[in-house]
Amino acid sequence: MPFPDLVHPLLDAYESSVTLPEDFSAFWASTLAEARTFSTEVSLVPADTTLRLVEVFDVTFPGFGGHPVKGWLVLPRDHAAALPLVVQYVGYGGGRGFPHEGLHWAASGFAYFRMDTRGQGSGWSTGATPDPVGSASQIPGVMTKGILDRHDYYYRRVFTDGVRAIDALVDLDAVDADRIAVCGGSQGGGIALAVAGIDNRVKAVMPDVPFLCDFPRAVRVAGRDPYLEIVRFLAQHREKSETVFETLRYFDGVNFARLSKAAALFSVALMDDICPPSTVMGAFKAFAGQEKSMVEYEFNNHEGGGPFQEQEQMRWLSARFS
Amino acid sequence: MPFPDLVHPLLDAYESSVTLPEDFSAFWASTLAEARTFSTEVSLVPADTTLRLVEVFDVTFPGFGGHPVKGWLVLPRDHAAALPLVVQYVGYGGGRGFPHEGLHWAASGFAYFRMDTRGQGSGWSTGATPDPVGSASQIPGVMTKGILDRHDYYYRRVFTDGVRAIDALVDLDAVDADRIAVCGGSQGGGIALAVAGIDNRVKAVMPDVPFLCDFPRAVRVAGRDPYLEIVRFLAQHREKSETVFETLRYFDGVNFARLSKAAALFSVALMDDICPPSTVMGAFKAFAGQEKSMVEYEFNNHEGGGPFQEQEQMRWLSARFS
Amino acid sequence: MPFPDLVHPLLDAYESSVTLPEDFSAFWASTLAEARTFSTEVSLVPADTTLRLVEVFDVTFPGFGGHPVKGWLVLPRDHAAALPLVVQYVGYGGGRGFPHEGLHWAASGFAYFRMDTRGQGSGWSTGATPDPVGSASQIPGVMTKGILDRHDYYYRRVFTDGVRAIDALVDLDAVDADRIAVCGGSQGGGIALAVAGIDNRVKAVMPDVPFLCDFPRAVRVAGRDPYLEIVRFLAQHREKSETVFETLRYFDGVNFARLSKAAALFSVALMDDICPPSTVMGAFKAFAGQEKSMVEYEFNNHEGGGPFQEQEQMRWLSARFS
Amino acid sequence: MPFPDLVHPLLDAYESSVTLPEDFSAFWASTLAEARTFSTEVSLVPADTTLRLVEVFDVTFPGFGGHPVKGWLVLPRDHAAALPLVVQYVGYGGGRGFPHEGLHWAASGFAYFRMDTRGQGSGWSTGATPDPVGSASQIPGVMTKGILDRHDYYYRRVFTDGVRAIDALVDLDAVDADRIAVCGGSQGGGIALAVAGIDNRVKAVMPDVPFLCDFPRAVRVAGRDPYLEIVRFLAQHREKSETVFETLRYFDGVNFARLSKAAALFSVALMDDICPPSTVMGAFKAFAGQEKSMVEYEFNNHEGGGPFQEQEQMRWLSARFS
Amino acid sequence: MPFPDLVHPLLDAYESSVTLPEDFSAFWASTLAEARTFSTEVSLVPADTTLRLVEVFDVTFPGFGGHPVKGWLVLPRDHAAALPLVVQYVGYGGGRGFPHEGLHWAASGFAYFRMDTRGQGSGWSTGATPDPVGSASQIPGVMTKGILDRHDYYYRRVFTDGVRAIDALVDLDAVDADRIAVCGGSQGGGIALAVAGIDNRVKAVMPDVPFLCDFPRAVRVAGRDPYLEIVRFLAQHREKSETVFETLRYFDGVNFARLSKAAALFSVALMDDICPPSTVMGAFKAFAGQEKSMVEYEFNNHEGGGPFQEQEQMRWLSARFS
Amino acid sequence: MPFPDLVHPLLDAYESSVTLPEDFSAFWASTLAEARTFSTEVSLVPADTTLRLVEVFDVTFPGFGGHPVKGWLVLPRDHAAALPLVVQYVGYGGGRGFPHEGLHWAASGFAYFRMDTRGQGSGWSTGATPDPVGSASQIPGVMTKGILDRHDYYYRRVFTDGVRAIDALVDLDAVDADRIAVCGGSQGGGIALAVAGIDNRVKAVMPDVPFLCDFPRAVRVAGRDPYLEIVRFLAQHREKSETVFETLRYFDGVNFARLSKAAALFSVALMDDICPPSTVMGAFKAFAGQEKSMVEYEFNNHEGGGPFQEQEQMRWLSARFS
Repeated sequence: MPFPDLVHPLLDAYESSVTLPEDFSAFWASTLAEARTFSTEVSLVPADTTLRLVEVFDVTFPGFGGHPVKGWLVLPRDHAAALPLVVQYVGYGGGRGFPHEGLHWAASGFAYFRMDTRGQGSGWSTGATPDPVGSASQIPGVMTKGILDRHDYYYRRVFTDGVRAIDALVDLDAVDADRIAVCGGSQGGGIALAVAGIDNRVKAVMPDVPFLCDFPRAVRVAGRDPYLEIVRFLAQHREKSETVFETLRYFDGVNFARLSKAAALFSVALMDDICPPSTVMGAFKAFAGQEKSMVEYEFNNHEGGGPFQEQEQMRWLSARFS
Repeated sequence: MPFPDLVHPLLDAYESSVTLPEDFSAFWASTLAEARTFSTEVSLVPADTTLRLVEVFDVTFPGFGGHPVKGWLVLPRDHAAALPLVVQYVGYGGGRGFPHEGLHWAASGFAYFRMDTRGQGSGWSTGATPDPVGSASQIPGVMTKGILDRHDYYYRRVFTDGVRAIDALVDLDAVDADRIAVCGGSQGGGIALAVAGIDNRVKAVMPDVPFLCDFPRAVRVAGRDPYLEIVRFLAQHREKSETVFETLRYFDGVNFARLSKAAALFSVALMDDICPPSTVMGAFKAFAGQEKSMVEYEFNNHEGGGPFQEQEQMRWLSARFS
Repeated sequence: MPFPDLVHPLLDAYESSVTLPEDFSAFWASTLAEARTFSTEVSLVPADTTLRLVEVFDVTFPGFGGHPVKGWLVLPRDHAAALPLVVQYVGYGGGRGFPHEGLHWAASGFAYFRMDTRGQGSGWSTGATPDPVGSASQIPGVMTKGILDRHDYYYRRVFTDGVRAIDALVDLDAVDADRIAVCGGSQGGGIALAVAGIDNRVKAVMPDVPFLCDFPRAVRVAGRDPYLEIVRFLAQHREKSETVFETLRYFDGVNFARLSKAAALFSVALMDDICPPSTVMGAFKAFAGQEKSMVEYEFNNHEGGGPFQEQEQMRWLSARFS
Repeated sequence: MPFPDLVHPLLDAYESSVTLPEDFSAFWASTLAEARTFSTEVSLVPADTTLRLVEVFDVTFPGFGGHPVKGWLVLPRDHAAALPLVVQYVGYGGGRGFPHEGLHWAASGFAYFRMDTRGQGSGWSTGATPDPVGSASQIPGVMTKGILDRHDYYYRRVFTDGVRAIDALVDLDAVDADRIAVCGGSQGGGIALAVAGIDNRVKAVMPDVPFLCDFPRAVRVAGRDPYLEIVRFLAQHREKSETVFETLRYFDGVNFARLSKAAALFSVALMDDICPPSTVMGAFKAFAGQEKSMVEYEFNNHEGGGPFQEQEQMRWLSARFS
Repeated sequence: MPFPDLVHPLLDAYESSVTLPEDFSAFWASTLAEARTFSTEVSLVPADTTLRLVEVFDVTFPGFGGHPVKGWLVLPRDHAAALPLVVQYVGYGGGRGFPHEGLHWAASGFAYFRMDTRGQGSGWSTGATPDPVGSASQIPGVMTKGILDRHDYYYRRVFTDGVRAIDALVDLDAVDADRIAVCGGSQGGGIALAVAGIDNRVKAVMPDVPFLCDFPRAVRVAGRDPYLEIVRFLAQHREKSETVFETLRYFDGVNFARLSKAAALFSVALMDDICPPSTVMGAFKAFAGQEKSMVEYEFNNHEGGGPFQEQEQMRWLSARFS
Repeated sequence: MPFPDLVHPLLDAYESSVTLPEDFSAFWASTLAEARTFSTEVSLVPADTTLRLVEVFDVTFPGFGGHPVKGWLVLPRDHAAALPLVVQYVGYGGGRGFPHEGLHWAASGFAYFRMDTRGQGSGWSTGATPDPVGSASQIPGVMTKGILDRHDYYYRRVFTDGVRAIDALVDLDAVDADRIAVCGGSQGGGIALAVAGIDNRVKAVMPDVPFLCDFPRAVRVAGRDPYLEIVRFLAQHREKSETVFETLRYFDGVNFARLSKAAALFSVALMDDICPPSTVMGAFKAFAGQEKSMVEYEFNNHEGGGPFQEQEQMRWLSARFS
């Protein structure tokens, strides 16, 4: 059946059963504080490209543990004033790719930064950022990397990198610190939600068909990877279900949404069997920002709105930040 | 097995057995002449986008039969002089999409035009151009649309549209008629090869993993659609094999390559089971232009070089046309 | 799960939510009237076969737009009087095939006509009838051919052909105009339902696992093509959902069923994921003829009753028309 | 790759390496002799159908071991003289089905008999004939049923049934004993070859894409079942390869072909990965009858020529037996 | 969706609708009585292995119809007294395999017997036991072998073999007749349930993800073979549904469970689409023994608990039988 | 086609083109030396099981970098003298599992140790050993973990662990240091080959369908994972092919084979598309030990000989070490 999850009106009524750990904010505050004890030196190296309308910088900044994280910063050439900034996080398996991929934000007059996801970047686009931390026994992929302890979990490092990227860029002359947005599709949307939840500098968040939301339902409803990495892990480690879901509470988009003060433009696809619509709805319903809207794509799977949604975002954010 | 076709050294030795019909040039000359009897009025409507660094025009021009064909023309804003022009044709099933998709040519200082493929544009990106012509009994898709007569064959119309796009743009102030390039991946590469073969205004052609080459081998080696549409047609119309292959001689990239005078930058992927490497090699070997080179991707299927090849192209063409 | 759709008792309770457009009858009346302005010349050419027990004619008649449409007329040799007529429409992708395929109606004493479906006939049996009309951007296949305007929609032409076939045969000496039945499986069943809805000469209709019924539900429940062509279309043309479903109301078997006065023998398969059982039930419930029955096959997918249902039909129709 | 096996010119050059056991003829002679020791009483019960142009008889005859075997005998109604007889054996998994399926031979003036394959008849058409004999450990299906001893092998019973069907029909008034043909597709073609090899009453044999030929190559080249049942058997019973292939020599179409005196019309499909073309060629090359021809379908998989080949057969046999 | 069947709380509430035939016990009593009229001679041949810690015997005993059935008996070497006995039945398609496979019961101090399943033993492990009985038309596999009559049904023979295995072993010196357990996974669990239902000597039964339970629901919910063999049978033999389900009542684990007096340790996997959890729950709820428990594996498909459940079983049975 | 790689006689003639790096032995000598600078304290904790015939110890020993590595040591209870030792490494994705899995070596009188593979152990059996080392951008799985530098490559750590396991066990009273064998299937076979190549204490090696051999051919011939992880890596990191293959030379079973002095019993499966037979042959041909033999399974895919081969091994090693 094309619809793998709830449809209207059940979808509208859905609320996630994920609960917020008491020490959720403390956990993230201490995590960020610890990360900020490492060097904050940021390297911006001009990249050699044929692109005449923009300037491109190969950025390296210290992420979680001070580990070097890469990204492309793309600026409209000859811009006049401090620009609004869009930070994009990328989808599962991908990396920052090439600077000439995804020029629409810079072409629309934004400072644009596309961050590598550590250890990823070999699946459908290339990355250049190691994750120097190993793991206990895990399923191939990152979903169960360090999952038995929230301090070891892979996404603790990634979400921290996401905040540290803003740390690295916020003081640049080209960036207007009062107009910072984060965005991303799928995993990128999940990271954006997390960063918007723990970093108040973020004024706008645009999660597309976000991943990493409402884990307890997601792993039981998703029809395809990567949520199913967790299912496969539990299929072998049959006794560790409670431990796993306890860890995941600290990384659930539903909980980050509860803390966010940004404006939000979500999207959801009703035939999405990778990030099932109810899990996106779970985060959207919980989202605490005063202004939020959701664009729905009824007949799409995980590709969601694609360029339609990009156009929505460019219009929404241009209006908001102009 | 990962390699679905010849590998080195057999691949290097391969030459296509496709022969050039005596009346090939005459067929195409009369086809273009007939198309040019229709109105040449071109419409350029400025498009409303958030893109500040470029100007976008929604172009409608008369293609085969005078039928209206759409495309996006993207120009660097505030450019000084006539610009080199890149015309891109798109892959099977897609359309011109949105103007903010694929900004790298304009960002590199080129006038850039992305043409719709008539009747297509519902598969992976959107198109807005009808093909008002029907067909005898055919397989879903366009590969066998009108295939029993070369005058009716679908690609007669498409290749003509490809030339007529240049007719429509060549006289614009923003365009330097002496620096025209055509490009495209897969079907787009096949169209580019055809246009470069029958339109001497084209000075450079960049076919990526081109489709529509060396049909007799392609339909017997390809492991996936769309070449297999032809196989399925012949599986039912068992008596029409000779007719079908006679038609296809007039549309074979190998034959267009034999007539081309442009410089060429090809790419080929050795694990490509949609456009098998020998069929690409068949066209490359036959290519008559004085300057040609081939970039090879050993471990790629039909995605080919992707952004690597885009970077190659931007460098190659920027050097050539600067 | 084997059952892709509703089962009893929910299935029995299901009623389609499709509504009848006010101008539905007017639309079809004017469509047929327009078609009948074209030549009514019908060609019957005796076919050269080894079949001694029957006579076979290769028939060409003017369909929608006067376009020539083909079919095989098979008559018991040396029959005495005017015979009851069975017109069969064929399933998606097929054509009229060979005259020696499907002799059971003629062998049972009926005049039998198997009509080509224009443009189809390359998928699993052969056809010889072009569809000379093109389309705006569409998905491969015919489900979205012209779907943005009901005047352009492919099935407007096909359903009209179905009525024009009766026009072509009804006055033959061999045919008894008071005993006309239409039948077909899948798409053929959908065409039969449409013809029975708009042509009162039809006294009996036998739709097997009919396609083209209850579109809004069908495209959301079907697990396989061809309904999913529409889903894929809407996955790209995300803004055209309303337009598409407005067109489809004029072609929905549920609405044709509401207008029919014929007797009906339906069949449905409960494991059918191509033509989900609820969509067949939607048409059956709506069927307005005074006499109707449904044969149910619990453990079949789209193959339905196959020869069991053929036997049911031969018995049912022989009793009714003898 | 579409072609799973040899193509021209290697295909033409191929000869099977299967050798003829010295006692092959003796094995079959004693097998038939033993079968004929059982009752020869044949039952013909008129079947109740709507078919007016033919007479149908539900036939039960004693096969191997005297076990009752079923078939449909279909005769043109009111025929004048003894008719040529066509015996058809059916493909793997199927049964004799319904009498109204496949009327083209009777409609062409032949007495036509379609024999059940014992134990089969639940896969794609229905059968009514048990195989009362069990088996040692086997793979689901019949390919390895009794395969460790040629006396126990399933096809010993089936091929004997095939001959006994002729025994049962040859003396009927309606049958002309001098004009007997056997045919069948896939498994049916393999049975036809076997019967034509050991029963000289057969004057013509028409094997379509025949199965059960050239086993040692077939199990190593076939890409799909049923040959692969044997591969799976040997994958478990790793030590029994020699025994298995020794049994199969007594059931190989190549060896039956070597003994045949009938005229033959073969067909082969070059993309057939169920009955790979080289295995068909192996039997064709070995075929000893003075007159033989092969129809080749280049772009077909195991569906082969389908109705094209039926038409070929009807023309070929009508000419030969008229 | 990962969960193919009911989940909590619906799963807990589920009760099978299978009813107990009045003559169920009589049918099995007479079946066993008849089997016991055949020779009871049992052969134990010491097997030549490298295994020093255990003794292995190649056992042949008379099963249903007196047919010879094989199994491996493995005893701890130099054991002191009569040992508790564990009889294991194996999963669908497998056989007793090699004696060195599965030594954990003998290593834990049990006499251990692994019985061949007649006719099977070529699928994933090897068997050496024929099923000398044939069948009416059937689907490949054993699920529909003889299914039209309960006296002919394949599992009548297998379940009888299961009881006869105990007959063969119970009087050995090494075996303590008061401590007999049966176990098995999937089909093996179904056989164990059946044996425990009709043989009061069994004191403990350990069915893992048992097959052959709650047939009417199972064939409608299972997503994969072997239950679907029955669906495919009914898809062809459309008129035999009632007959088939009447036969299956006599072989349904739900009904055997109703008669059992043993202690039971079940397991169920909630993502199991071969033996759907509701069907296991159907048998568990019906189980009449005074002591029963169920181990649930939420994130497993048909592999269920695997070695986790083996460990559970060894602990549970060691405690119970020590 | 069932055979995905070379068959006889081409298979016999095949020799790997992999060359031995000059510093191969030095690289491994220094790697081992460095590992041995870490603590050598080994922990043996008696495990609580129901197994009476054997003693089980939960072993933790220092592997590469001194990282703790786990394994099960299983000893026949009440053994008299120092026992020959079999160390088994496990297949890709698995872990040491439960001690009651795989008792046949201990039951045959060997001290038996099954080592965890660091970081793995969630795929098909469970492991308890972390890999605390991270990686640059990689494909999910371990094949490309650290692949850009031989010092970082994942298998550098694993192979070292394999030697360190012997270090940990060789001095136990229960172990006879002169009779040490290593074995494993697939990845386990690759590790065994590596250990036998760099540790002269190993007197016998039994690689079953070994993985990690003849990489340049393997990645181009394998049809399924895990070799294809490397292909996918190179499909994105298109410029790193040379670097990757340079690293792999230091981890290639062909090169380890060239250095080995042990006796060897290999197995190979001719239908294996995970570890293609030519790659196994490449290692076998190169194997330098004076005594070597190969068992071939013609009709098996990667399951290879399974219990047949286990029996071969038990007989071969029992004879050799008794």
